Amino acid sequence: MLISTILFIFLFACAPPKSNTEVNTSPIKEQEELSNWNATDNKKEIINFIEKVSNPSSSQFVPVKDRIAVIDMDGTLWCEKPFYFQYQFIVDRMRYLVPQHPEWKKDELLNGILNNNLDIVRKYGWEGLMEAVVLTHTGMTVEKHEELILNWIEETKHPKTGYAYKEMVYLPMIEMIRYLKSKQFSVFVVTEGGASFLRPWAEKVLELPNNQIIGSHLKLVYKETSKDTFLFREPEILFVSDGPNKPVAIHRFIGKKPILAFGNSDNDIPMFDYCRSNEYPNMQVIIHHTDSVREYAYGAQSFVGQLNIALRLAPEKDWVIVDMQKDWGKIFDRD
Amino acid sequence: MLISTILFIFLFACAPPKSNTEVNTSPIKEQEELSNWNATDNKKEIINFIEKVSNPSSSQFVPVKDRIAVIDMDGTLWCEKPFYFQYQFIVDRMRYLVPQHPEWKKDELLNGILNNNLDIVRKYGWEGLMEAVVLTHTGMTVEKHEELILNWIEETKHPKTGYAYKEMVYLPMIEMIRYLKSKQFSVFVVTEGGASFLRPWAEKVLELPNNQIIGSHLKLVYKETSKDTFLFREPEILFVSDGPNKPVAIHRFIGKKPILAFGNSDNDIPMFDYCRSNEYPNMQVIIHHTDSVREYAYGAQSFVGQLNIALRLAPEKDWVIVDMQKDWGKIFDRD
Repeated sequence: MLISTILFIFLFACAPPKSNTEVNTSPIKEQEELSNWNATDNKKEIINFIEKVSNPSSSQFVPVKDRIAVIDMDGTLWCEKPFYFQYQFIVDRMRYLVPQHPEWKKDELLNGILNNNLDIVRKYGWEGLMEAVVLTHTGMTVEKHEELILNWIEETKHPKTGYAYKEMVYLPMIEMIRYLKSKQFSVFVVTEGGASFLRPWAEKVLELPNNQIIGSHLKLVYKETSKDTFLFREPEILFVSDGPNKPVAIHRFIGKKPILAFGNSDNDIPMFDYCRSNEYPNMQVIIHHTDSVREYAYGAQSFVGQLNIALRLAPEKDWVIVDMQKDWGKIFDRD
Repeated sequence: MLISTILFIFLFACAPPKSNTEVNTSPIKEQEELSNWNATDNKKEIINFIEKVSNPSSSQFVPVKDRIAVIDMDGTLWCEKPFYFQYQFIVDRMRYLVPQHPEWKKDELLNGILNNNLDIVRKYGWEGLMEAVVLTHTGMTVEKHEELILNWIEETKHPKTGYAYKEMVYLPMIEMIRYLKSKQFSVFVVTEGGASFLRPWAEKVLELPNNQIIGSHLKLVYKETSKDTFLFREPEILFVSDGPNKPVAIHRFIGKKPILAFGNSDNDIPMFDYCRSNEYPNMQVIIHHTDSVREYAYGAQSFVGQLNIALRLAPEKDWVIVDMQKDWGKIFDRD
């Protein structure tokens, strides 16, 4: 709320009102619209691409209906360290529930999560996380789940910065979403996490409607009582939009290949390759975590957000590598 | 293409250009914008609702971000007789493929479909149809499937009217979509059929982007070769957006409750109830097939598009019942 309010005021204080026609043809005012992107070659390259595809007189023009951008969430739109934020929600929720479930303390995985022991979590890998997702995200109505997420995201603080988790979104990427929208892109978040973990607050903070937030999802069942109807979250994971399933999710939810993709890990390679197979001009951008002071520096050796193969492939595939330390001004709005 | 071209010309020939502000506040020009809706009480009631929720000075105002409309496809946006059009695609595809599958002729269900024997199809019900969907819609890339659908929808003629199937969309409903869009509604089609059966041509004919076409879907797998990447349609049905799954699909793909729903059968009751549970002002509209001359007259006794319980519930739930014969001018653009 705070971030979006501040950004909203910023946008309207600085940018003159524009007609649709102007948006399409005027050159970007860099200081205004992407003010937390430093004037580097990477910034120039990304802007050039976006200008080109949205300029009707350019040979690289792409019609509005096909001007689709996809953006990974964890590590691309917000921080993912010390561990995925949805995992932190799981830890907090399990600690709240454990008095009713003393048996969790006798289970190696669950006790490991309760003690925030990342070695145990890594040992059980993705399957262990899915077990914890079911324990904390299901057996309730959609409304109840939204309420839990909203309370958590408003109140819980990040251990390094002390900011609320929802304030851990990257300001330059919020500016990028706004800039893309001004160029009539349809912008979609494609996350490996649960779509329902983002949607309750994304409209305000990411400035995107729920149908443009795509992610993993559980089985839902529609139930009726004599007084009411509701959707119930069942303990069964239906679809996980991990690496090779990101193109699947994009096809199923968007129904078109993107021309622009932002990601930050090897997990985004299939999405990049899928975007790159578009017959329209296209671009793929890697956000590289290089700032150990203001955020975190990690890559090839990291369990969370491993970036190894993608960096190696980048030169041959023309992937842009954004260096967070050099290319970005403020990382978080509250910095 | 023909329909959309004609409608496009019609719109721009008749309607003066409008700014967003005007769209929100000016009273609807009925003759222009919904010219194939006769001046009946039903038309007045639907327009009043749409005007009210989109008028910022009305007590019933609904913000743009929550102004969501959902529309069923078969029997609501296009004809569904003598049988669902996707079924006709299946029959045609199976007849094309049967030389390579002589064993199909020895199977009661498959031979029944090959002979377009609806009694056999009814006997096997939904499960039989799903078997036929797998035989005709899977084991190919997404692109190959799109090509099959596009060729079929362009070329195949409806047995009663002789129009191409894509010309069997209801002109008044296309006008309704356009009118809703002018009132800044987000309009979604929610069909029990395959989303992939509509998307290849919906952008032109329904004037909606692919991500606003929601329906049943199959398992997809992302594959890579040394040269290319592609999505392959696997022989497994993942999700069927039938009656009680329509609210599930709406939550998963849209992430918000609609304020307006159009349907035509008992299958749409859960979607209507879900829409009706919205805290915002809301409306549900039944399209009743009453015109045996220009289209078909059917309802309580029909296997396809059975409308029985919903008609009975309509008065107590305030559902509007559109009488196609009385309320609509032209039904099809080519009439």
